Amino acid sequence: MSTPPGGADSEVGAVRTYVHSHSAAFLGELAEWLRIPSVSAQPEHADDVRRGADWLAGKLRDTGFPVVEIWDTPGAPAVFAHWPAEDPAAPTVLVYGHHDVQPAALADGWHSEPFAPEIRDGKLYARGAADDKGQVFFHTLGLRAHLATTGRSAPAVHLKLLVEGEEESGSPHFRALVEDRADRLAADTVVISDTGMWDETTPTVCTGMRGLAECELVLHGPEQDIHSGSFGGAVPNPATALARVVAALHDEEGRVTVPGFYDGITPLTEYERRLFAELPFDEEDWLRTAKSRATAGESGHTTLERVWARPTAEVNGIGGGYQGEGSKTIIPSSAFVKLSFRLVEGQEPERIEQAVRDWALARVPEGLRAEISFAASTRPCLTPLSHPALQSVVRSMEKAFGRPVRFTREGGSGPAADLRDVLGAPVLFLGVSVPSDGWHAPDEKVELDLLLKGAEASAHLWQDLADHWSEAH
Amino acid sequence: MSTPPGGADSEVGAVRTYVHSHSAAFLGELAEWLRIPSVSAQPEHADDVRRGADWLAGKLRDTGFPVVEIWDTPGAPAVFAHWPAEDPAAPTVLVYGHHDVQPAALADGWHSEPFAPEIRDGKLYARGAADDKGQVFFHTLGLRAHLATTGRSAPAVHLKLLVEGEEESGSPHFRALVEDRADRLAADTVVISDTGMWDETTPTVCTGMRGLAECELVLHGPEQDIHSGSFGGAVPNPATALARVVAALHDEEGRVTVPGFYDGITPLTEYERRLFAELPFDEEDWLRTAKSRATAGESGHTTLERVWARPTAEVNGIGGGYQGEGSKTIIPSSAFVKLSFRLVEGQEPERIEQAVRDWALARVPEGLRAEISFAASTRPCLTPLSHPALQSVVRSMEKAFGRPVRFTREGGSGPAADLRDVLGAPVLFLGVSVPSDGWHAPDEKVELDLLLKGAEASAHLWQDLADHWSEAH
Repeated sequence: MSTPPGGADSEVGAVRTYVHSHSAAFLGELAEWLRIPSVSAQPEHADDVRRGADWLAGKLRDTGFPVVEIWDTPGAPAVFAHWPAEDPAAPTVLVYGHHDVQPAALADGWHSEPFAPEIRDGKLYARGAADDKGQVFFHTLGLRAHLATTGRSAPAVHLKLLVEGEEESGSPHFRALVEDRADRLAADTVVISDTGMWDETTPTVCTGMRGLAECELVLHGPEQDIHSGSFGGAVPNPATALARVVAALHDEEGRVTVPGFYDGITPLTEYERRLFAELPFDEEDWLRTAKSRATAGESGHTTLERVWARPTAEVNGIGGGYQGEGSKTIIPSSAFVKLSFRLVEGQEPERIEQAVRDWALARVPEGLRAEISFAASTRPCLTPLSHPALQSVVRSMEKAFGRPVRFTREGGSGPAADLRDVLGAPVLFLGVSVPSDGWHAPDEKVELDLLLKGAEASAHLWQDLADHWSEAH
Repeated sequence: MSTPPGGADSEVGAVRTYVHSHSAAFLGELAEWLRIPSVSAQPEHADDVRRGADWLAGKLRDTGFPVVEIWDTPGAPAVFAHWPAEDPAAPTVLVYGHHDVQPAALADGWHSEPFAPEIRDGKLYARGAADDKGQVFFHTLGLRAHLATTGRSAPAVHLKLLVEGEEESGSPHFRALVEDRADRLAADTVVISDTGMWDETTPTVCTGMRGLAECELVLHGPEQDIHSGSFGGAVPNPATALARVVAALHDEEGRVTVPGFYDGITPLTEYERRLFAELPFDEEDWLRTAKSRATAGESGHTTLERVWARPTAEVNGIGGGYQGEGSKTIIPSSAFVKLSFRLVEGQEPERIEQAVRDWALARVPEGLRAEISFAASTRPCLTPLSHPALQSVVRSMEKAFGRPVRFTREGGSGPAADLRDVLGAPVLFLGVSVPSDGWHAPDEKVELDLLLKGAEASAHLWQDLADHWSEAH
């Protein structure tokens, strides 16, 4: 660990000194947690997931949380903690993260055992180091720093934590849990601690995520596969018809053709577009990350605008007829496509689903029968740049990093929107992971320097929110 | 068996009387053959396939063929037989059929054991009854009738039989076998005995089959499936691009858009269209057979024209990305489509393949990599209505059925074209199966009356070809 810059007499310096001087113990404990293979997608690890939850609950008690509970769900348990502020008028903040991890095995290409954490060259390698154990756990160090440097015996805000255990399995019980426990989870703002920043040298604050609607369209033709010699050319082929629906989904400008799809969207302002454009975006780098050969998409928008701020329609899966080696001369009995639509602020999933349904069903030719179904949707969530709570995150990150932050968004969709919808609270994002951390991949790691900066930002955030909340309300 | 009509003093009557008086023994022997489960697609039946070939070889020797050989292939064996005419100037005729059958099990919905032949209501139920053992075996009875009623000790034509053992597995070694043995198989005309007629009461002669070109197009996008949230809307999706290729394959008139696709085709004459139109076609019935709800296809053509005389492009299989239950938010790494093109006289498969390749590859967007491959193709084959050998088949069928035949074609593709190409001989079709016979389905059967008419037609055909061959050459 390098010697922390910044004077000990300043708030920034005091937090930094505390964090750095307690980093060894912090990392030792985090490594303990990372040794638990809490893989929620693998039933054989169900006990490990529970053990990981219990471990975290113990550490939260050690940190001083007076209320720490394990909340069971029909799947893996969540951990809830609550530490009220002394001032009843202080704002309530709910931190969200998850304690489960993606599957991992040495044979996948790891250079060290995924559940035997190893520090090499300033990086901590382990499954969950960045996603999400490291980013949940830095809050314990941040909170200790906050208390120690302010001389408080309780946080400046009413601090709540909800750490779920099924995020890597699609959070199947999360929405119900939040709805059931809405009174316990009630908060003025939500801090999502499960994202990252632009890169190692560019501190950023994420301001929102896209929403998601998902549908499956099945076209049924002949009652069973029929001979393409005897009948080819004379009956509708469901795979051909399906391809036509998919092909019609976008126009030549890469815009989605479903009527009303773009209704209600506020276009990006020039300021927002400039903020995106100021990021050090390198197309070659981005394509490497996307494992793709070329960019493509909606005309008139940059790649970052396309993935962060524009809605999309993508084929996730398509199938029908013969799938084996070689050929088989049949007309398939049916064909399906799985589509997902990323949504942005202004697009209500229910309305989009209805529009997609109407559009798709109108394109089914005579002689085919269509079935269309939708999965549970996720709303987009975007916190305006001007929101005072967002400004607290910005200041906290700037204190930790010592330079101005830039702004990003997240193209994916997450439980953030559930929290916003159920709790009615704006959502903030505090994360220090970087794209090279290898989420879901072999050799997942977290940069130790950034992890400690996350703890610093966390320490600043509680004080800043307490100081500025009244201004905003 | 009903009493045969027709006077015994006429040629027609003599043949009929012979066939009917020997039908009991004939059916007894056929039932013996049908008990052998010679399923070429199931390795556990390899011995049965060989046993079925040996059985047939024995019966051909009993019939009088001086040359009967088992021809081994890398797969199942074929049976070859040759009985020269006494007149060296007589034409040589090669009869084609197959001794293997489709899989079958009582559990598939049969009303009696598929390999325990059973006669019910004038129909013989067994796997292979119509496809193709019954239609191969009626030639032995026909030949006996021919010899008995003409007083010959050898057939009027140099008669060859080639009965393959892998037709139900796609005839993978047939072309090579025919090429290797082309000298032994040399013939003036080929008679395919593996088809049928319009229906129970409409004797028909098939005049040709469509050809077949098959291709698989694979579009490769990201090196692996990537997250549709992080990258959706900004890189080319191979499944979407593939759907666009498929959607572009036909125009709004149902015509194939590949440039040059229709080049070289001789349009149907008004006479040919009238012959098709004279058949008792019932759309409701046809749709039931096609297990489909509506007809569709190339504008300006009837259903029969579409399936018999027009080329087509059909999707046989399409796939890519997530195939499981529910949803998965990915952009697929690749997507494929398997296409088959039915070809008609004038379309050379090699030229069509090149045209399809050029057309498809030109439609691949930047950033995707395409692979396209073609399976072995089959040429179309069509024997003109005016061909003298075809007229012999027509007369023989008319003698057997006592009324004028009509003309059909076959939409499928078969080894007929290999025989025509390698041997340079025109191809004739002699078949008495009907659509209700249930080829490849449970309760496959053959109509006993029609089976005996097939034997009669066979008996007439050798004499007619011998009588009329010289006229034509």
